[in-house]
Amino acid sequence: MSRLRVHALSVSLDGYAAGPDQTVDAPMGAGGMQLHGWALATSRFGGTGAPEIDEAEMRSGFEGIGATIMGRNMFGPIRGEWPDDEWKGWWGEEPPFHHPVFVLTHHSRQPLEMEGGTTFHFVTGGIHDALEQARQAAGDADIRLGGGTATIRQYLEEGLVDDLHLAIVPVLLGRGERLLGGIERLAADYECGPLTGSGAATHVHIKRRT
Amino acid sequence: MSRLRVHALSVSLDGYAAGPDQTVDAPMGAGGMQLHGWALATSRFGGTGAPEIDEAEMRSGFEGIGATIMGRNMFGPIRGEWPDDEWKGWWGEEPPFHHPVFVLTHHSRQPLEMEGGTTFHFVTGGIHDALEQARQAAGDADIRLGGGTATIRQYLEEGLVDDLHLAIVPVLLGRGERLLGGIERLAADYECGPLTGSGAATHVHIKRRT
Repeated sequence: MSRLRVHALSVSLDGYAAGPDQTVDAPMGAGGMQLHGWALATSRFGGTGAPEIDEAEMRSGFEGIGATIMGRNMFGPIRGEWPDDEWKGWWGEEPPFHHPVFVLTHHSRQPLEMEGGTTFHFVTGGIHDALEQARQAAGDADIRLGGGTATIRQYLEEGLVDDLHLAIVPVLLGRGERLLGGIERLAADYECGPLTGSGAATHVHIKRRT
Repeated sequence: MSRLRVHALSVSLDGYAAGPDQTVDAPMGAGGMQLHGWALATSRFGGTGAPEIDEAEMRSGFEGIGATIMGRNMFGPIRGEWPDDEWKGWWGEEPPFHHPVFVLTHHSRQPLEMEGGTTFHFVTGGIHDALEQARQAAGDADIRLGGGTATIRQYLEEGLVDDLHLAIVPVLLGRGERLLGGIERLAADYECGPLTGSGAATHVHIKRRT
């Protein structure tokens, strides 16, 4: 069965995956962009000179993926009812997915077919329903869980994530969206691989015990 | 002026510096000993074969220290009034400090002189008072803040820690004593050095901005 994978999830030393006070102009929250310095330095994001370990971790997140799941905030900043079909998310005319993307929302909307093979499907049935739809779309390939923090916590709390790649960065945010704390089942149901990384990020893969 | 330093403070991926349900037999809490595998592998603790980066980080915590501050739980498991002077802490007849140690407590007690140059002083005046007494005892040397988690949080919240060496370990505890989250001043007042480490621990030094 295809696995549900999280990749390149950056977290501060004090445990936050996004800063506080998110706005349209600061979707990562106050200070939150600091979390992604290592990622933006990779060639995937047009950077140069990222250490090979960072490049390899970034690349692996795009390999073998047949569908993506994301929370609504990852699609765009609009809350509540969809005002019209004009707003097509902040991923541009040709989103970088090139496969079906399942957006969790409480408000139904027709699928949105973009250029380059990405179709956004809006799922109102909850995280299990989205996972089921993504599995059917992905076939033999895996599913990437894109975020945000609250969505990842929900899937972790239900024990549905198979592999979580964490990138710990030397940043302190003080407050924000707490990623892992307080998810009790992590201790029993998941195991951690060794730490690897560069001076900019420590990588670790947290896998569900089989 | 002498600096207040924290060393070899191990923290889980989900942000805990000790497990839940601490007892006399499990002073680190449930699962908490997993946090200290990298430390116990160093020669300081009789281990063999720890990577040099781990050895070096462990050694540096004992260099240039003239006094230690610790919370009462680090001295021993007794709570409330001291029953008698028989219990001399769980550090043995010759504690590994060899300098004055200031124990935070709400209950006064006469100083306890041990073999090898360690004297335990029991401070009832709070964390600032303990720091002042430790500064006088340390002279030109630095002060090591030994723990536990609650004591370190108190000193961080007051902005009194100069250098905090964190050892992030690939362990998940699910719940326990949260170390860094929610201390807002960390974002503005502290800066992080680069990440270094072995597969068993990632080291980072968090320093107060000057």
